Amino acid sequence: MKALADANVAFDCFEASDRVGGNWVFGNKNGMSSAYEGLYINTSRDRMQYADYPMPKSYPDFPHHTQIAAYFNDYVDHFGLRRRISFETEVLHADLVHEGENRGKWRVRVRDKGGAWERVYDGILVANGHHWDPLWPEPAYPGTFDGTQLHAHHYRSKDTLRGKRVLVVGMGNSAMDIAVEASEVGAKSFLAARRGAYVIPKYIFGKPLDQHVTTARIPWSVRRRAMEVIHHLVVGDMERYGLPKPDHRFGDAHPTVSSRILDRLVHGAITPKPNVAELLGKQVRFADGSVEDVDVIIWCTGYKVTFPFFDPTLVSAPNNDLPLFKRVFHPSLPGLMFLGLLQPIGAVMPLAEAQGKWIAKYLRHEYELPPPAEMRRTMDEERERMFARYVKSKRHTMEVDFDDYLLDLEHEIRRGKRRSAHRRGDHHAT
Amino acid sequence: MKALADANVAFDCFEASDRVGGNWVFGNKNGMSSAYEGLYINTSRDRMQYADYPMPKSYPDFPHHTQIAAYFNDYVDHFGLRRRISFETEVLHADLVHEGENRGKWRVRVRDKGGAWERVYDGILVANGHHWDPLWPEPAYPGTFDGTQLHAHHYRSKDTLRGKRVLVVGMGNSAMDIAVEASEVGAKSFLAARRGAYVIPKYIFGKPLDQHVTTARIPWSVRRRAMEVIHHLVVGDMERYGLPKPDHRFGDAHPTVSSRILDRLVHGAITPKPNVAELLGKQVRFADGSVEDVDVIIWCTGYKVTFPFFDPTLVSAPNNDLPLFKRVFHPSLPGLMFLGLLQPIGAVMPLAEAQGKWIAKYLRHEYELPPPAEMRRTMDEERERMFARYVKSKRHTMEVDFDDYLLDLEHEIRRGKRRSAHRRGDHHAT
Repeated sequence: MKALADANVAFDCFEASDRVGGNWVFGNKNGMSSAYEGLYINTSRDRMQYADYPMPKSYPDFPHHTQIAAYFNDYVDHFGLRRRISFETEVLHADLVHEGENRGKWRVRVRDKGGAWERVYDGILVANGHHWDPLWPEPAYPGTFDGTQLHAHHYRSKDTLRGKRVLVVGMGNSAMDIAVEASEVGAKSFLAARRGAYVIPKYIFGKPLDQHVTTARIPWSVRRRAMEVIHHLVVGDMERYGLPKPDHRFGDAHPTVSSRILDRLVHGAITPKPNVAELLGKQVRFADGSVEDVDVIIWCTGYKVTFPFFDPTLVSAPNNDLPLFKRVFHPSLPGLMFLGLLQPIGAVMPLAEAQGKWIAKYLRHEYELPPPAEMRRTMDEERERMFARYVKSKRHTMEVDFDDYLLDLEHEIRRGKRRSAHRRGDHHAT
Repeated sequence: MKALADANVAFDCFEASDRVGGNWVFGNKNGMSSAYEGLYINTSRDRMQYADYPMPKSYPDFPHHTQIAAYFNDYVDHFGLRRRISFETEVLHADLVHEGENRGKWRVRVRDKGGAWERVYDGILVANGHHWDPLWPEPAYPGTFDGTQLHAHHYRSKDTLRGKRVLVVGMGNSAMDIAVEASEVGAKSFLAARRGAYVIPKYIFGKPLDQHVTTARIPWSVRRRAMEVIHHLVVGDMERYGLPKPDHRFGDAHPTVSSRILDRLVHGAITPKPNVAELLGKQVRFADGSVEDVDVIIWCTGYKVTFPFFDPTLVSAPNNDLPLFKRVFHPSLPGLMFLGLLQPIGAVMPLAEAQGKWIAKYLRHEYELPPPAEMRRTMDEERERMFARYVKSKRHTMEVDFDDYLLDLEHEIRRGKRRSAHRRGDHHAT
């Protein structure tokens, strides 16, 4: 919105909730927040903030979710954007118009307090998040479980774990957080995972992890080796902590960021376990044959990328995979753009900010996309590189490197500006 | 006991409680345990264990207090020492006999279930611990406080802090632990301190802090510089975390070991404060003028070294200072020895084990102390070195370096063996 408003592009903005903040609104009435009471952000204040509106210096390096939500609120108020949002307005359906004068445009059906209505748009910008639709283990583990089980999405407070024997399944950030919280209040905290991950603390060498100098100018192989050495130096082998040995090299998969899990493991406050083998009513059997009494299982098994307002035959992301031109433009559907649909190593917000500026240029015709065939060729090349670099999993379909991505957008905007100037016959532009 | 039993030295052992473990027995009925539910040991399993009875490999690197207590129990049972302890037997008084055939020996008065009785001993070995008698701030802070206040010694469970605004005063290990626990369950956790300390994590470079190779062969100045560099690299300036800048160089004071406090500070889950200025009923004013509502104050201000069974004119430790010959032998009172009355950088148990063996040699006349004047001269030199090395405070009256101390005892035992052989006219011994 900020980029479109700055560029004088007309827009509507629909939000199902009564406030901004999405995932960062604890108990968001739109049902799409996965925030729990003890949730802090994983990217540091100075690295995640929008360039045009720094976070308050009174904020800690890693703010609490309530502070992040407050920041978003302050942001929209500071730039006078709140009045441009239609709150409590749910997008029911979006479809490409097939016939008539609006052919090729987008018909969007929404529902607000007054009922449902439609409008036609030149383009739509999808920013519905990708951490709200629970992904359960597939295939499901054999057996049945008679205790309480929930997905991390529905986990709200460690109070619900008090005195319980808790099994957390997963190796991502929320698995780490929830296993730690279970160790704080529960009778027992088990952590099991299908596969290993490299856990890295949020603070390293007295600075937030993501504030250490990185640059796209250093080749990936060199950066990876440096990270490997630092991880080995600072953390050491994951097996040392009782965690599964990752089946990949450092940097081949999204690392897990947690400053607390390793400490709780070396104190025996969390008991690491291999993968779940079978659910046995009130017990769980693990791959090493051990059996434990378990009251609560929390599945921290990730999220699905879904778009309830699109017909799946038009747009969907099977296995969380939705190929896009530089994670923004749909290569085949004109005017369909996505915002923040990426999984950076680093913070999302500055990338979304850059995407917004890129989109504004496109909508003002100051930037022109490459022809579809070229877009697809570029995408294929980039996907090949991504799959060569990352372990193939549902977690790594939209992985980007913070620095690489920003640099790449910059180059692409320059190229598209030349294409646009060329089409307009303005050969002076560079 | 183990060393004395091995050396066939006759002894009695009196324990006020009904079990072994002392400080490590949560809720010890002798009232002298400061253990809280969330207490884990700060020295690692492999470094703290007794040489002749390793801790179970199933133990985590930093065991829980229940595991330490279990280890002590297993130890006494393994070596058949339990039957040699008089449990529920309190030492009421110990005094040097002034007259008669027992002149110069020790008369000890104890009380068991059957009543009080006395016995005379050639020597007494004081092992009553020095983390049980609360030291409150001196001078007391001005003003009065209307909320709950307690000393860390009486802190048992974070459940008592639920929903409370908690102020923790101190910069030692228990201050760190309790501030973290307050941040987990309380409404607010403040951490204030009179002076700064260097906080260092328990795990460093993927290994327990105390398992990194150290040796007395490297001069202190070099080791100190190495520690300084590593601390700066791994942790950075304490001010970065909102904590007071230490008024001394790294290594000049006992460092604080905590893996969790810094993480909670950079998340804003704990609010650092400068020193308390005044207690204002339900509020506290701090040195920077800020005023906060506080429900509970926990004074983590250390412990006094006291010996309730000695007449203070005979033995006492004003300002926690009790000069002893190599932290064991009283230089003026024959047969008076102390065990574990030291504050090592490193683990106490292996040092106590070495002290025990030394004492056994002394009691078997295989080792002879230097003459009192020489003992005092050595002590004076060592104290001068200690005070030159450490910040002068109640915390640093019995500081020893793990490696230096062990090496020093080894040398001293060799010297005393020579003295003893010399006296016996046995000039062959070396």
